[in-house]
Amino acid sequence: MPVNLALPDESSLFPIAGMRIGVTEAGIRKSGRKDLTVILLDKGASVGGVFTQNRYCAAPVQICRDHLQTDAGVRAMVINTGNANAGTGADGMLRAQRSCEALASHLGLSPRQILPFSTGVIMEPLPVERIEAGLAAAIADAKPGNWLRAAQGIMTTDTQPKAFGTQVTIDGVTVSISGISKGAGMIRPNMATMLGFLATDAVVSQALMAQLAKELADGSFNRVTIDGDTSTNDSFVVVATNKAGNARIDSLSSPSGRALLEAMLSVARQLAQAIVRDGEGATKFITVQIDGGLTEQECRQVAYAIAHSPLVKTAFFASDPNLGRILAAVGYAGVDDLDQAGIDLFLDDVHVVVQGGRHPDYREEDGQRVMKQSEILVRVALGRGSCSQTVWTCDLSHDYVSINADYRS
Amino acid sequence: MPVNLALPDESSLFPIAGMRIGVTEAGIRKSGRKDLTVILLDKGASVGGVFTQNRYCAAPVQICRDHLQTDAGVRAMVINTGNANAGTGADGMLRAQRSCEALASHLGLSPRQILPFSTGVIMEPLPVERIEAGLAAAIADAKPGNWLRAAQGIMTTDTQPKAFGTQVTIDGVTVSISGISKGAGMIRPNMATMLGFLATDAVVSQALMAQLAKELADGSFNRVTIDGDTSTNDSFVVVATNKAGNARIDSLSSPSGRALLEAMLSVARQLAQAIVRDGEGATKFITVQIDGGLTEQECRQVAYAIAHSPLVKTAFFASDPNLGRILAAVGYAGVDDLDQAGIDLFLDDVHVVVQGGRHPDYREEDGQRVMKQSEILVRVALGRGSCSQTVWTCDLSHDYVSINADYRS
Repeated sequence: MPVNLALPDESSLFPIAGMRIGVTEAGIRKSGRKDLTVILLDKGASVGGVFTQNRYCAAPVQICRDHLQTDAGVRAMVINTGNANAGTGADGMLRAQRSCEALASHLGLSPRQILPFSTGVIMEPLPVERIEAGLAAAIADAKPGNWLRAAQGIMTTDTQPKAFGTQVTIDGVTVSISGISKGAGMIRPNMATMLGFLATDAVVSQALMAQLAKELADGSFNRVTIDGDTSTNDSFVVVATNKAGNARIDSLSSPSGRALLEAMLSVARQLAQAIVRDGEGATKFITVQIDGGLTEQECRQVAYAIAHSPLVKTAFFASDPNLGRILAAVGYAGVDDLDQAGIDLFLDDVHVVVQGGRHPDYREEDGQRVMKQSEILVRVALGRGSCSQTVWTCDLSHDYVSINADYRS
Repeated sequence: MPVNLALPDESSLFPIAGMRIGVTEAGIRKSGRKDLTVILLDKGASVGGVFTQNRYCAAPVQICRDHLQTDAGVRAMVINTGNANAGTGADGMLRAQRSCEALASHLGLSPRQILPFSTGVIMEPLPVERIEAGLAAAIADAKPGNWLRAAQGIMTTDTQPKAFGTQVTIDGVTVSISGISKGAGMIRPNMATMLGFLATDAVVSQALMAQLAKELADGSFNRVTIDGDTSTNDSFVVVATNKAGNARIDSLSSPSGRALLEAMLSVARQLAQAIVRDGEGATKFITVQIDGGLTEQECRQVAYAIAHSPLVKTAFFASDPNLGRILAAVGYAGVDDLDQAGIDLFLDDVHVVVQGGRHPDYREEDGQRVMKQSEILVRVALGRGSCSQTVWTCDLSHDYVSINADYRS
């Protein structure tokens, strides 16, 4: 059961002019599961993306990085679940290229105008012939308002589809933003998560898309973690179809640029947090906020040390205020000159630790009350400076072990 | 059930001349559990230690570091379980000092000649009055051959006591070595683990003890991990009682020094591996060996990325050869210029990955066969250089979650 994650609100999933989505069952994952999605873009869309920093990145990730450099412009994407096409060597590259060639042939495009994405088991050969056979049905299914079907089409161990949208007025023009994401395990994105797609009809210069994708990922997907495992396939793609009629946005620091960034970031955060809420076996949604750091980097280190600690995560699962485990994680986060006497710890509104030691007013039942909630804020004040960072994570439960012990069976 | 860990062989637990050990029940942990241990040293022993690098180190760790500098020489140690005396601020320091003062008073020593150790729950006040009340019984119990009782006296979530010993001939003299350790969770020592004690009757100069302790820890306790959580209390102490009659060892690179180091390292490795074999919920003992690295540091990074991955650890628990998860961990280990095309992966004798992709001869049933074993060697060849590193770890099972969700209850 995901943590406070409603089914997508279809009324907020705005069709994006200049973009159509089609989904089908190609028999890649398991029978009866939609597993092949195509996203078709009109000519003239701006596209940017960020991809996993895992050095064992998948074949489709390597091809995406290359194809995003093409001058002809990206015109379509092909996404399969059930197979990650990672750890597959030169043969995996050939199979990913074949999927691009097949879609390009259907659409009369160059293969370099196609971005391929895969998610699923690592180190198995991609059944590219099933993708080739399924493309006609996926293209026939394509229409502008297909966000929910696409969110379903990219799921693996997700228990719910993840899709959010919003509208914002820019330049006196209503701009729509919609996006989808998937992922429930192997989640510690280091650029973005497998998979996130966010689109707007706003007019944005192509030159700005790489920066836009990076800023959106840094403010959303790059702040979540489930198990600390950075995937081989993380991909986050941002599309501007340039149909809304606003004056073209050339800078994220202009008023229009800031407004668009903020609106897109709100959707990206919902998509990223949805992944944590639906994290494998999750029963709690935990916000880890670190204040008072000398640098943002040290705040991130401390936040991730807490968010990745199996001991902290099992204590949350048990609703057990065994909060010394949080202090231990703060201590081993790698901040070499950290002085424990400067540290305060808060659990929501409860002041647990003052100047490194247990607060004299702290009572076990107050900690217990917060630990029983489904949403918990852990706040650590390092007492060293004025930097802050926030990450979102979930607990570690029996179901996480069950899901990952049985994933392939 | 620990993984292939026999009960201690009492015939190999050699009394160490010049050292007596006493154990009692002081009512600190839970009723009926031995929880207070004293180690008494004759005058003239050489003592060295290494301690956790966790910045939130416990009060007793801070005092040990200080007391090891004393010129008067360490003469006794006091060890309690049931309470870590960490995250306890200035009050925790006072309580740890009181335990030193109490034992010093019994023995007619200075408090600075006492080393205190604590293990258990973090952030609870140390019940020092129970330690004070229990010391007389512990001292009365003291005798040279009490290693097994001491191994029992320092257990927390351990399911078995851990004690090993050996003898070696140095200088024509028989030298004895015995040691104990404890720990089953919050295990990713970064200097040493909570708690390891190793003693010999060999004659070793005090000036050499710090280096000896460090080399022993680096070759043993600093190579194991259970859950990646570096404890607040890790302590590893090495004692040479200087009673054996060998010519004093002043260098670890002399023939005598090398012989002693090798013999002590064999015992330290058994103690360290015993902690993994008895790791919380462990069902498999896994050796992760990284070869072909440019530096030892990058080999360690890759080894720990594999050993800490919850996805890899649950696959071992399930005996599921979902080995792509190992490749993903190699890829995110932080070796920025790693080329996946240079990587080979072996599972025991099975060649799984060649030049980054699945080996053409690899068959699922071969991987399955190895994954079902209780002892597994994972070997990754990075193809970049000639450095190697090895770490030892265990799987992640339902029992790990159960044990840590219920630890305090």
